Amino acid sequence: MNSFDASGGAQTRVVILGGGFAGLSVAKDLRRAPVSIVLVDRQNYHTFQPLLYQVATAELEPDNIAAPIREILRRQRNVKVALGNVTEIDLEAKVVFFDGGKLPYDILVVATGVQQSYFGNDDFKPFAPGLKTVDDALKIRGRMLLAFEEAEWEADDAARSAKLTFVVVGGGPTGVELAGALVDVATNTLPKEFRNVDTRHARVILVEGGPRLVAAMPEDLGHRAQRTLERLGVEIRLNTRVSNVGSEGVTIGDEIIPAENVLWAAGVQGQTVAKTLGVELDRAGRVVVGSDLAIPGHPDVFVIGDAAHALDAQTGNPVPGLAQAAIQAGRFVARTIKQESVDGPRQDRPAFTYHDKGSMAMIGRGKAIAAIGKVHFGGLLGFLSWNLVHVMFLVGFGNKLVVLMGWLWNYLLHTRRSRLIIGDPDVHITHMREDEPQ
Amino acid sequence: MNSFDASGGAQTRVVILGGGFAGLSVAKDLRRAPVSIVLVDRQNYHTFQPLLYQVATAELEPDNIAAPIREILRRQRNVKVALGNVTEIDLEAKVVFFDGGKLPYDILVVATGVQQSYFGNDDFKPFAPGLKTVDDALKIRGRMLLAFEEAEWEADDAARSAKLTFVVVGGGPTGVELAGALVDVATNTLPKEFRNVDTRHARVILVEGGPRLVAAMPEDLGHRAQRTLERLGVEIRLNTRVSNVGSEGVTIGDEIIPAENVLWAAGVQGQTVAKTLGVELDRAGRVVVGSDLAIPGHPDVFVIGDAAHALDAQTGNPVPGLAQAAIQAGRFVARTIKQESVDGPRQDRPAFTYHDKGSMAMIGRGKAIAAIGKVHFGGLLGFLSWNLVHVMFLVGFGNKLVVLMGWLWNYLLHTRRSRLIIGDPDVHITHMREDEPQ
Repeated sequence: MNSFDASGGAQTRVVILGGGFAGLSVAKDLRRAPVSIVLVDRQNYHTFQPLLYQVATAELEPDNIAAPIREILRRQRNVKVALGNVTEIDLEAKVVFFDGGKLPYDILVVATGVQQSYFGNDDFKPFAPGLKTVDDALKIRGRMLLAFEEAEWEADDAARSAKLTFVVVGGGPTGVELAGALVDVATNTLPKEFRNVDTRHARVILVEGGPRLVAAMPEDLGHRAQRTLERLGVEIRLNTRVSNVGSEGVTIGDEIIPAENVLWAAGVQGQTVAKTLGVELDRAGRVVVGSDLAIPGHPDVFVIGDAAHALDAQTGNPVPGLAQAAIQAGRFVARTIKQESVDGPRQDRPAFTYHDKGSMAMIGRGKAIAAIGKVHFGGLLGFLSWNLVHVMFLVGFGNKLVVLMGWLWNYLLHTRRSRLIIGDPDVHITHMREDEPQ
Repeated sequence: MNSFDASGGAQTRVVILGGGFAGLSVAKDLRRAPVSIVLVDRQNYHTFQPLLYQVATAELEPDNIAAPIREILRRQRNVKVALGNVTEIDLEAKVVFFDGGKLPYDILVVATGVQQSYFGNDDFKPFAPGLKTVDDALKIRGRMLLAFEEAEWEADDAARSAKLTFVVVGGGPTGVELAGALVDVATNTLPKEFRNVDTRHARVILVEGGPRLVAAMPEDLGHRAQRTLERLGVEIRLNTRVSNVGSEGVTIGDEIIPAENVLWAAGVQGQTVAKTLGVELDRAGRVVVGSDLAIPGHPDVFVIGDAAHALDAQTGNPVPGLAQAAIQAGRFVARTIKQESVDGPRQDRPAFTYHDKGSMAMIGRGKAIAAIGKVHFGGLLGFLSWNLVHVMFLVGFGNKLVVLMGWLWNYLLHTRRSRLIIGDPDVHITHMREDEPQ
């Protein structure tokens, strides 16, 4: 049977791996296509990744920014959803293997995203969690809150100071947003709740290997982000590389910064399953695709979103790993699949071009930066635009409403609603403070 | 120094173990007392236990029903909060030991609650999680949702049927509420989201050792709960004891019910730390206290809430393990501490009596039962009262608002908002269904 043959008998079987922005957008845009879709994800929910850092910093709860994939697609009768971790893709047999089973496909869409990269230093990982999943975010939240809990009762000055030192590695949008939020937690949310320590003395250090922050955004906004963060109290180290992360802290050149809380926002790499394809990957483990976003020589296998190394057909620049690029690629591929499932395969497929609608990053309480075309702005206007844009793209009216209310509540009351340490907290205090009656 | 000596020098040091209803109510009622308080809990939050089953059944998120203890007590300057798991209490040395340190006390209030009891069959535990903590609730939620996910793709009829069979052990309020909510998930929330299985065919079986449901409530309400649950489709087995729970299912007499999802709501026992006190415990491991709620011979150590075996001074009946009893005991003990910290210790302490303000249990969508004095009612009136009363007692205006809105949203749209499987789901499918294009 021809993969693209829609006439007579069985429909074209489309398997989509991943329910992120890219995978969901393909699935949704195929809603009227004569195909039968199975979407596989290793979680039962879609995550709105741009807001993950707010789950990590106690501003939002997971269900505010994530929604069950089944619920999102419940009205679309040509999609089935499967929960499973993909372990192997066999391009010759046209079969995907995952925990508990396998699925044959006529057309495959790989949208498995990326994982954190430690640039070969995987031994940093236990000491420097990354922020790619809801579970990562809950882990970071738990560690951050636990650090303050322990500091409150830690009698040893050096140990207490290490607990109150936060190092964020990586000055991209995620690093900048984490650093700004950490300062806000320490200076606005917590001070009134602690008796023995002044949480406002917590140090937040942002380390970036390059010469400026948010390199993907215009230069003036990078400087603006830096000024704002410095005014909030973040220590910024540019042109600085981390040579080690361990239980004693972070090593930068000859200096060791004693810090119990290190967050890794420095790099990404493709998922391990990409290696089983046996096709060309770039240095970061992303699958190299043609201008049609299919694997060269495999017109029935598309790779989109962060998992792909794609070039913009117009500019020749790499397509960035952003939500809007993933959504656009998903729509583009859905269009190709739809057309060919009706008209049959064609040799001269259209080429993908990315339309940049602008970019934004939150800096701190009431402050964000934004670039829309040639217009760059920040401050309160940036903050309001950031909130508006991020709420607009959340899945589900209920989430939009709850998140907006939560932000307003937290902003007005200088609090953060989501401060539960999920999982058994494992308290480590070197020497406990004698409690003196007040 | 006399424990109750408030004159000159240092203040009386009160250590409270546990930030549940009992512990928090002592702490709050001592806000104007000339004492210095440390409240220790092994979580950083207070849990509103009556609503835990709604976290387990995907109706609410943890932060809707739990709030950081520090935040609750932030304005009360005579309290410090410590995070730690108490391992030993030394009544002679007057010291409490916990992870990371120890605290000396002049007055100790033990309010550590209870843990699930398997009546000596701790090997049931891995197969039948109980519902005492937020982590328990998230685990139950994850397992329940995973069961439906696996059933969707399970080709083996017997394996699929075991995945869609839920057995709730214990017909008290928690068991009744869980059973009703499980049926609602299967029949109202999920059907439209699954393609291969009809989730409405899920079986929910409620097993109770005694002759009727909710034995602590009036008999007519027990029957009412039974009729309502049966009409919703719950299979009820009364006078039935579970002899085994394992990977194959639940054993009742000679019958094995193949079920992958077993929830344990059958019994409780005191926390293990109570054994380190070296004083009289009842059969369930609760500390036996006098009419002043102190340990006989230890007037400086009070035990309250579920951790205590106390008798009502008026009726001679055991004080029930309910939120309202814990709150009343907390207030009572705070009054004693306050008086004696001013007037010095007295021999003829007042005796605790419990005022029953009524009891309620949710049965299912739009239906609950309630007994207030001699008035018993149910149906929609019961449902509305249940919702009203439970929201009223939630900590924090924000939580009240969010929970009310969440309930309304879920009720009107026949959905449940909180359906993320937190933690890596571990999918087990015996034989995967061949996907046939539709």
